[in-house]
Amino acid sequence: MIDLRPVRGTRDFYPPQLRLRQWLFDIWRRTSAQFGFEEYDACILESEALYVRKAGDEITEQLYSFQDKGNRRLALRPEMTPTLARLILQREKALGFPLKWFSIPQCFRYERMTRGRKREHYQWNLDIVGQPGNVAEVEVISALIMSLEAMGLDASRVRLHVNDRRLLGEVLDHIGIPAERHLPVMVVMDKRDKVAPESLAAMLAEQGLTGPQLEKLNAFLAMEGLDEVQHALGDESAGARALDDLLSLMGRVGFGDTLVFDITVVRGLSYYTGTVFELRDRSASLRAICGGGRYDSLLSTYGGPEIPAIGFGFGDVVILELLGDLDLLPDLRSEIDYVVFPFSDEQVPAALEISQQLRRKGYRADADFGSRKLKRALQRAGDMGARHAILLMPDEMARGEIVVRDLERREEQRVGLEEFLKQTK
Amino acid sequence: MIDLRPVRGTRDFYPPQLRLRQWLFDIWRRTSAQFGFEEYDACILESEALYVRKAGDEITEQLYSFQDKGNRRLALRPEMTPTLARLILQREKALGFPLKWFSIPQCFRYERMTRGRKREHYQWNLDIVGQPGNVAEVEVISALIMSLEAMGLDASRVRLHVNDRRLLGEVLDHIGIPAERHLPVMVVMDKRDKVAPESLAAMLAEQGLTGPQLEKLNAFLAMEGLDEVQHALGDESAGARALDDLLSLMGRVGFGDTLVFDITVVRGLSYYTGTVFELRDRSASLRAICGGGRYDSLLSTYGGPEIPAIGFGFGDVVILELLGDLDLLPDLRSEIDYVVFPFSDEQVPAALEISQQLRRKGYRADADFGSRKLKRALQRAGDMGARHAILLMPDEMARGEIVVRDLERREEQRVGLEEFLKQTK
Repeated sequence: MIDLRPVRGTRDFYPPQLRLRQWLFDIWRRTSAQFGFEEYDACILESEALYVRKAGDEITEQLYSFQDKGNRRLALRPEMTPTLARLILQREKALGFPLKWFSIPQCFRYERMTRGRKREHYQWNLDIVGQPGNVAEVEVISALIMSLEAMGLDASRVRLHVNDRRLLGEVLDHIGIPAERHLPVMVVMDKRDKVAPESLAAMLAEQGLTGPQLEKLNAFLAMEGLDEVQHALGDESAGARALDDLLSLMGRVGFGDTLVFDITVVRGLSYYTGTVFELRDRSASLRAICGGGRYDSLLSTYGGPEIPAIGFGFGDVVILELLGDLDLLPDLRSEIDYVVFPFSDEQVPAALEISQQLRRKGYRADADFGSRKLKRALQRAGDMGARHAILLMPDEMARGEIVVRDLERREEQRVGLEEFLKQTK
Repeated sequence: MIDLRPVRGTRDFYPPQLRLRQWLFDIWRRTSAQFGFEEYDACILESEALYVRKAGDEITEQLYSFQDKGNRRLALRPEMTPTLARLILQREKALGFPLKWFSIPQCFRYERMTRGRKREHYQWNLDIVGQPGNVAEVEVISALIMSLEAMGLDASRVRLHVNDRRLLGEVLDHIGIPAERHLPVMVVMDKRDKVAPESLAAMLAEQGLTGPQLEKLNAFLAMEGLDEVQHALGDESAGARALDDLLSLMGRVGFGDTLVFDITVVRGLSYYTGTVFELRDRSASLRAICGGGRYDSLLSTYGGPEIPAIGFGFGDVVILELLGDLDLLPDLRSEIDYVVFPFSDEQVPAALEISQQLRRKGYRADADFGSRKLKRALQRAGDMGARHAILLMPDEMARGEIVVRDLERREEQRVGLEEFLKQTK
């Protein structure tokens, strides 16, 4: 016997799991369309070179990468943003900016598995490219919150923690970290929730932070209000001003309750340049549900022009676990309009013909050839989520009649087959 | 500058291509639902062991395979049927047979690229598992033909060529090929359209066929009617009887015109055991559009019980090319109900708020912050497929009014903002 389990860290989707996944994807697609985003996609395989970065991003250490039969270094994409950048740069001249694009790619990371963390997940990516300033932030974050509402999640359950890399940069400046160390320091800071304080301190020391600098950094990270940070910085802060404006605009469009300023939000990807945000379960039992931010320099690091961009990635694994915990998953059943049951071999061709005629009329119809007893047939029809069962019994069929049973009303009637097919249309 | 092209043999899907793909997937999903099939899926990564076969299948030589960081031998799936078998065997006891399942997986094969052949494609897989005999054939083939009709293809454009591996086995028996050579001989026979006659003859000689045997085989392969083959075989032929019954049932459900018996159809996969079929463009400009067949022994080769099964794989690349050649691709545009245009910075927050309120009411709404001149704004609204443009002009806004323009009727009216938001619901 071969090993029947899926590859470690990956999932099988039997019909019940697939229905849930489709329900989630439908919410993502509907929300995207409501905001005017268009869907794009690309192959799950990309050149490994697309993910080479200098700042020590965890993601590049977790690549599923290999050499193909033509000696190309390839990788299964760990995230979609580099692919988005590639697509845009490839046709930059022909595309009309700003672009509002979304995708639901499967992404892979070879990492230790814990609850809410597999080696693959599907991730709703929603991005606005070519739009500077907070209007893009408002659109992207509003779409995110609308999708949560469609899942039954509101500000009492989840909060969007927002920060700004520019503000973090000002903080690091303030405590005397040279600009060229900002990015690697931020990548380390992002591990704050994942490693013990001593390990984090050691990693920051490795990045050149002195004891007093670490102390000052921790003092900043303990601050709760934007005013407090602004006050501690002393100087006029561009990061704080941008955040203040964003929070006020989000209030105006009606989502003020869901947003909260959080100076500890960094995000692990080195390409973020401005706003960063993380959606968190308020019961805090799970890690970040979704994260994103502004990345105005990513396209230029690939050799293209500077094009402002912002977006997020929202994975399916964590949210489905959270919705399950909160008992918010819908009860999705299979559904069909008619199931035809032949009760002897002679009725089999008629069953095929009747179900096919019903489909021609636009109905969802099925035929069941294995349930030759009435009780079993009705049970099977129920399992299949059928509205009606059509019973082909030898005596009735000899008279050109069928029995149509309404499974909801538990009523049945004998009708002529011809007549029935004329009626239903 | 990094290489911006997709990995060789793979495709990018910009929004226009994605819309076409989605249109095709929707037809596949709708048809599947109409026939009572349920969707499943699994990860694109599988254990390489799932594809190890003895009969020389081309598919196992074209694997994208590699070793992961945990030293597992993995492969990107080249086809879905082994995964389907794995899923079924994993839960065999809990599943209610017959299963009618479908999936639209992406599949990979590292092969030479020609027209209609990439290294990845999406493939509609539709299978009935646990149903012996021709009723499953009728359901699966009918679903295939219904999906073609939804694309605008009928019997004048495409034909389904059917054959039966049992009949081919009888032919090979008849010309004296020992049973254990049947499978490798059939795998070679399938290359008939791809290699020159001399190469094919050489490959068959390698499989032990003598000159006279090859001659007899070619005589059989030149026969057009099922009667003729039956007559040449002499003995009662189970394969011919099954085919005869299938053709008659397909006539009864109304698809007789689309099917044609074709003794040259073999299919390249070694696991087929009965009916095999191939959908071909009647202009014959492209290779097989879709293929499938019965594989009653696949599950037992993985160590499970014998469970009868039949299905097909229908790729997206060839069909989209064919539909393009026949000018049958739909003209799909992006669509949105409202686009809001602020004509100065002061109107930006109002634009965000109005578009968000429209979304709350269920409309698809967008705001455009870059088109500050009327002519440009209306052109942009047209490009976005908008039904209405909402123009926020400083003077009108000062009076609490907006201009709503119906882009189809080319009419516009000034209305109070409050009133407008009350009206639209």
